[in-house]
Amino acid sequence: MPRLRLALAQSNPIVGDLVGNADQIVAAAHAAVEQGADLLALGEMALTGYPIEDLASRPSFLVDASQAVTALAARLETEGLGHLPVVVGHPDGPHEPRLLGTSNAPTAIAQNCASVLQGGTVVARYAKHHLPNYGVFDEYRIFIPGDELLVLRLKGVDVALIICEDLWRDGGPVGRVLESDAGVLLVINASPFERDKDEVRVPLVTRRATETSTVVAYVNIVGGQDDLVFDGDSVVVNEHGEIIARAPQFAEHLLVVDVDAADATDTELPPAVRRVELAGGGTSTEHAAAADIAQLPDDREQLWNALVTGTRDYVRKNGFRTVILGLSGGIDSAVCAAIAADALGPENVYGVSMPSRYSSDHSRSDADDLADRIGLNFTTEAIADLVAPVETQLELDGVAAENLQARVRAIILMGLSNMHGHLVLTTGNKTELSVGYSTIYGDSVGGFAPIKDVPKLLVWELARWRNEHAEGRGETPPIPENSIAKPPSAELRPGQVDQDTLPPYEMLDAILDAYVGRELGRDDVVALGFAPETVDFVTRLVDRSEWKRRQGAIGPKISGMAFGRDRRLPITYRPTK
Amino acid sequence: MPRLRLALAQSNPIVGDLVGNADQIVAAAHAAVEQGADLLALGEMALTGYPIEDLASRPSFLVDASQAVTALAARLETEGLGHLPVVVGHPDGPHEPRLLGTSNAPTAIAQNCASVLQGGTVVARYAKHHLPNYGVFDEYRIFIPGDELLVLRLKGVDVALIICEDLWRDGGPVGRVLESDAGVLLVINASPFERDKDEVRVPLVTRRATETSTVVAYVNIVGGQDDLVFDGDSVVVNEHGEIIARAPQFAEHLLVVDVDAADATDTELPPAVRRVELAGGGTSTEHAAAADIAQLPDDREQLWNALVTGTRDYVRKNGFRTVILGLSGGIDSAVCAAIAADALGPENVYGVSMPSRYSSDHSRSDADDLADRIGLNFTTEAIADLVAPVETQLELDGVAAENLQARVRAIILMGLSNMHGHLVLTTGNKTELSVGYSTIYGDSVGGFAPIKDVPKLLVWELARWRNEHAEGRGETPPIPENSIAKPPSAELRPGQVDQDTLPPYEMLDAILDAYVGRELGRDDVVALGFAPETVDFVTRLVDRSEWKRRQGAIGPKISGMAFGRDRRLPITYRPTK
Repeated sequence: MPRLRLALAQSNPIVGDLVGNADQIVAAAHAAVEQGADLLALGEMALTGYPIEDLASRPSFLVDASQAVTALAARLETEGLGHLPVVVGHPDGPHEPRLLGTSNAPTAIAQNCASVLQGGTVVARYAKHHLPNYGVFDEYRIFIPGDELLVLRLKGVDVALIICEDLWRDGGPVGRVLESDAGVLLVINASPFERDKDEVRVPLVTRRATETSTVVAYVNIVGGQDDLVFDGDSVVVNEHGEIIARAPQFAEHLLVVDVDAADATDTELPPAVRRVELAGGGTSTEHAAAADIAQLPDDREQLWNALVTGTRDYVRKNGFRTVILGLSGGIDSAVCAAIAADALGPENVYGVSMPSRYSSDHSRSDADDLADRIGLNFTTEAIADLVAPVETQLELDGVAAENLQARVRAIILMGLSNMHGHLVLTTGNKTELSVGYSTIYGDSVGGFAPIKDVPKLLVWELARWRNEHAEGRGETPPIPENSIAKPPSAELRPGQVDQDTLPPYEMLDAILDAYVGRELGRDDVVALGFAPETVDFVTRLVDRSEWKRRQGAIGPKISGMAFGRDRRLPITYRPTK
Repeated sequence: MPRLRLALAQSNPIVGDLVGNADQIVAAAHAAVEQGADLLALGEMALTGYPIEDLASRPSFLVDASQAVTALAARLETEGLGHLPVVVGHPDGPHEPRLLGTSNAPTAIAQNCASVLQGGTVVARYAKHHLPNYGVFDEYRIFIPGDELLVLRLKGVDVALIICEDLWRDGGPVGRVLESDAGVLLVINASPFERDKDEVRVPLVTRRATETSTVVAYVNIVGGQDDLVFDGDSVVVNEHGEIIARAPQFAEHLLVVDVDAADATDTELPPAVRRVELAGGGTSTEHAAAADIAQLPDDREQLWNALVTGTRDYVRKNGFRTVILGLSGGIDSAVCAAIAADALGPENVYGVSMPSRYSSDHSRSDADDLADRIGLNFTTEAIADLVAPVETQLELDGVAAENLQARVRAIILMGLSNMHGHLVLTTGNKTELSVGYSTIYGDSVGGFAPIKDVPKLLVWELARWRNEHAEGRGETPPIPENSIAKPPSAELRPGQVDQDTLPPYEMLDAILDAYVGRELGRDDVVALGFAPETVDFVTRLVDRSEWKRRQGAIGPKISGMAFGRDRRLPITYRPTK
């Protein structure tokens, strides 16, 4: 069996940054050549970042991207890397529009492509066949599908090339891999993280390997892009379904592995398959060192890393260095502070305690304790003297007066942000966001919401995990035990606790998981055993707070049904029941 | 030639309100029977409202909608209307999922259908073939396409039935209408208003009539649903391309018209066409009174009506009675107040003047004048005593201190909203929103933004039009001449005017039309004749304020490229140039 040395690069592109992303690719190519690779592959859209959304409909963007592909090919040659075939994802166009809809409609003019660069030019190109248009994906909106499988012949091995969604569907290109007698199936991906996705992704790769009798090489990008976090977790599985290499999650990494693949044959190609001969790649004859097979950390650590990665990349990619957030002494702000410190270093995190006349002593002491444990920058701004003049002048009471306190805190955070250039983090969790238990333009303000996709019970669980993790490494647990243990409260009136107005969190999160997460109807939620009046109360709160969610900050998606792109519902909605 | 009396009902559904929407349909059926109609047709999704977005992926919603169809058929029969064939749009499902994507992906389980109700049951059903998935539409995400044209044989006439986008595409069902020898082509629609759309829509209807040798009956819903405004403008065009009936824009209306259509023939049906015989409809033998042929008002009046309709329906459909907004004396808030008064009556509009130490005398007197002219509720809340304590405590200056003023005003409006149940309107225009010339959590706060899709120059034009319109009717022009004439200013520092920091509005709106409206790249905008540094300045502002737009209120779409659903771009974006 011929042997190929594959290099799979988990790069972390920034959408639009053609220069910076190309630099990452060239660096990966240097490293791949140093390690004697025969072929280097990067992720889907590694040259432009993913998702590019409607930038794909802008002809000038496509022209720039196409020029960047050509320039990259030339640069690889100039830097002495031209012999190495490099497979890189990018949008291609502008093409003739696919659809003739209404005259004003933007129509798809791009394809989602993988180009093979060698010898200073583009030697082959594959266009993605299956365009996901569900969940967070809008690819049917912006791309024209391809219709031909590409097979690269390299050093006596046929390498079939597809992109992401193509692997998930039975029809189309993946169905032609077996007939093509390919020895390797290379899949380039931009596959966002979500909880338990590793339980479907790797089994799929494994199944395709055995079905198609190929070594499947799966390469994914890493890093945060708005509300998506890409986890890498690139993997190579042999034709027996055994994992022979696996890259670490959430880290830029070059995974190099020797694969023994079936000889290329000269059987007639099936229809809709094109074969391109590549010049031999690497020159190494030594067997590579045993490839990495990274172990996935446990579920909670994966989630924590996703939140840290999403927060770090949103902050950095948008040009911020520091963040600011309100510290109430409660669990949500404590967890957000710990995430921010892990993402950016504690010296770049600014916490502000903003006690009111209703704040308990522990809310101040717990915030202080948190700041000490983490080592973040900590100040206190009492709100009483700022709230009183407004309350008096406008004669506010009840909920209006409660919301006022939250809005004065927002003014403080935004004022300090404007003065010092910090990005404001908003600390609401998914449960709160689901039922609208927050003050709009109050505690909801901010550019990024680290735990917006984390339900309350999971916030506690992650807090406990993070503390245990610190203990296990002989470090100070960041989150005060009291913030974990005490009953949650917004502290907007004397003695208030969340459960004055909301069902117990165990029940609330279970109802929300059914209604939001699994899209069950009201009757189906009741059938799970919850009291009808509780279900009606909760679902009504969810329906009525859509307008608040629309105006909320983005935050990292970690579930299969995150607010935002995953779940698109009208604001104006009058349910019959 | 046989004669059919068609009734086309422009109803104004609320998304989800199966009971209220059915009531509208039954009322239309009563009116249609009274006028001797042979067939009644309502718009696309008239039973559920449009767009239903991801409600289409919720099995319980589809079950409820299907039961509502059955119940509606039965109710029509019970109320003595069973002989009238009623064509009504609704989602149908749940069906087997169309796609097998990633295991967690919601997949399309619904069809976008038109059901024909007669004799107490559903006698025929058509499923939309072409699913728009561009601009504001996401139908490929949520619907499974149909594949068969439906022809209804009624009183010796064959009536082909299609839905909205089907009319716009050459292939598919519309291509089979001519071969089917149909005499009438009935199209039910939920086609949102945008400027100049009448210049493509009616010509398309006309072209299809002559191409297919049919009378084309085109019925559209009316009313606002979140950021979309449906304008009705239902029309009937004979096979010579002549308009024989047209309903008024933006009004609930029943359009009744007698059409003389070709005899049904017994030629063999082409493939993918199904014919269903209906019992004869109406009993009238009198010729109907000449049908209405409404005249479209001029462009500015259409735009004004769209803004009024969108505002009225957002407020009412979400259960509000009153609105509140800040009145600065400037043109934007004056136009918003006039729209709100036209939408809800001046007695339901609350204006608040919130002068600061930098406010000019005219800002107060112009606001006062506006309130008098319109007759809205008017109060004044000075902000100086509320701003000073924050400014002092936080030591704010520069932009931070400017933003603080806007945020204190937001606190006032939200406090009054919370106390009195008013919906807050936010008064920013499209130009401002494009370049981020607003204070987030300050002047941007609110649930609805009446002029968010209106560029600054058009704001002035609409103000002048509204005043002239009032004068033409002998009414008081609502907008103070001074608010129109004076140079725009945020008045956040002494002597400030917008043009201190922005290019002249004539230039700015032209650059934005090119960059945002027509999606031209930076170089193409420069090629139009603008200074490169101005183009760079403006495009950078647009790119950098995406995060603010994402957190902004929705408002009525009137252009071909409204912010929100039409233009979906990443926040994290680092352009190369």
